[in-house]
Amino acid sequence: MAGLEDVARVAGVSASTVSRAMSRPEMVAPRTLERVRAAAEKVGFRANPAARALTTGRTGFFAMLVPDLENPFYAAIIAGAQAVAEEHGRWLIIAVTEGAAEREGEVLRELRDQVDGFVLLSPVGSARDLVAAHRRKPVVVVNRRVNGLTSLTVDTPGGLARIFDRLAELGHRRVAYLAGPPGSWMDRRRRDELGEHAARLGLDLRVVGPVYPAFADGAAAATEIVESGCTAALAFNSLLLLGLMYELGRRGIKVPERLSVAAADDMAFADLPGTPVSAVRVPAGELGGRAVADLVEMAGAPGAARRPASRKLPTEVVLTGSLVPPAR
Amino acid sequence: MAGLEDVARVAGVSASTVSRAMSRPEMVAPRTLERVRAAAEKVGFRANPAARALTTGRTGFFAMLVPDLENPFYAAIIAGAQAVAEEHGRWLIIAVTEGAAEREGEVLRELRDQVDGFVLLSPVGSARDLVAAHRRKPVVVVNRRVNGLTSLTVDTPGGLARIFDRLAELGHRRVAYLAGPPGSWMDRRRRDELGEHAARLGLDLRVVGPVYPAFADGAAAATEIVESGCTAALAFNSLLLLGLMYELGRRGIKVPERLSVAAADDMAFADLPGTPVSAVRVPAGELGGRAVADLVEMAGAPGAARRPASRKLPTEVVLTGSLVPPAR
Repeated sequence: MAGLEDVARVAGVSASTVSRAMSRPEMVAPRTLERVRAAAEKVGFRANPAARALTTGRTGFFAMLVPDLENPFYAAIIAGAQAVAEEHGRWLIIAVTEGAAEREGEVLRELRDQVDGFVLLSPVGSARDLVAAHRRKPVVVVNRRVNGLTSLTVDTPGGLARIFDRLAELGHRRVAYLAGPPGSWMDRRRRDELGEHAARLGLDLRVVGPVYPAFADGAAAATEIVESGCTAALAFNSLLLLGLMYELGRRGIKVPERLSVAAADDMAFADLPGTPVSAVRVPAGELGGRAVADLVEMAGAPGAARRPASRKLPTEVVLTGSLVPPAR
Repeated sequence: MAGLEDVARVAGVSASTVSRAMSRPEMVAPRTLERVRAAAEKVGFRANPAARALTTGRTGFFAMLVPDLENPFYAAIIAGAQAVAEEHGRWLIIAVTEGAAEREGEVLRELRDQVDGFVLLSPVGSARDLVAAHRRKPVVVVNRRVNGLTSLTVDTPGGLARIFDRLAELGHRRVAYLAGPPGSWMDRRRRDELGEHAARLGLDLRVVGPVYPAFADGAAAATEIVESGCTAALAFNSLLLLGLMYELGRRGIKVPERLSVAAADDMAFADLPGTPVSAVRVPAGELGGRAVADLVEMAGAPGAARRPASRKLPTEVVLTGSLVPPAR
């Protein structure tokens, strides 16, 4: 394997210069840098990202920080990110932060020199810390808006409002929202917007939860929803709703005759037998893919071109036979 | 930030020697290596894993290669691996291979110099390629046995055999196995062992599928299972069984009265209302944790101590009221 000293010999410079060209290219004359790069290419000096950064100006790696891997929404975002990274010949590595600000900060520091940029999925760190990280390596934030950073969010509340419109039209008066997860910034915003929209429509909104957005928690919420006298239920995600529907089925409570249902994503519904379920179709894969595409652009043009741009992706609202007029 | 040249100055050696100490420590005299390490420590030379490897003998990173992130079994293994990595002060980064041998090989090559070792989750590469990778950096294989490598598997077939024993005892004669995923090495082995065991017990085994092991696919299999005349069904995973149970509930088919049910893991069953579901409890978290613990040991003692050791973790079989005598 060719080493630093081989590059130095071929370039006709000292090993220190090669090292400096790697670690602090801005301190090396452009012509020298060019010579070092050509030499590195010639002797086949490769290996670690830092070395590759020398010859190509980039490490080839992006890091994606995710709170957890159990959430199917995150898995779908990662899959979309992975596909676009591949198209651009980049490697995506994933680090789990467990939704802890301290850990998130550590991972950002530890991986800083290893990657060309970061995608932060639902980050929990302060805006200040995230902006500081961006100054070292480009950062794209998904699922949260941070001033000064490129952020990608999805207009789920807007989609849920359309479902409320439909429920009001059908004659529902009391509607349940199965909320989750506890402490979520996104869920809080949704509840606020839904509350206002329900009031405008004259709907009585009953919030159940917040609960952890998993199948079993949806099933466990069945009793409270049925006893609340609501004739329709919206769930924070499709997994929760599936759990609720499972339990209703087990108890012989008919959907949608006794309870109209919808969810804020449709990820767990693909190919499900029976009446299709109404949902806000969230473009999770697109979200991940766009984040990486933005990062590719930023990483290719450092400095000025890193101007932040926030984007809210629209959702598609799928209205189906799972919404029917309330039983008399 | 201190550079290579600063380390060289303090150590009183050339930058080439520092570079060589990093890339090929075996070519540098032990006393010189010691001096370079002390100098690196003194000037605060850190940054990338390669540099850290110089001062501490390790990068601090492990990489875990996983086929996909949608599978909850993998997510649980990763969570266990993550926890143990943290205990040992190591960073775990995850790379998705999409179950493609070519991609798996590329990731192994690309990350080789960045990490202290690899955990390969259900790898698909040839044994020869995997053993070759291990020669560069320690490798632990999970969910597959590879000669010459440390492998961790789980005795799920043994657990499923206990469930068959129970079904035979209860008087069942025709039992369905809902298989998945297509092309899986593990599923093939399971089907073979279950087939032999069923024959020994005089059970008529009907294999349904293989199908992709997701909720909707379990629901879609309901018709074939009900029409097969089977009085009990085992599923490849808990998600498939949950889908099957959902669809049975929707059709008003009683579980377990009309169909006794069990699954080869219990991951989707936690806190589910109703009769607990019989399952082989797979220690997924332990599997990931042990793999990392083995890797820590191997990475700390290169060469001789990398002797391979295959281990099969036992499973716990949970027999519940979801298995009852067949209806007359």
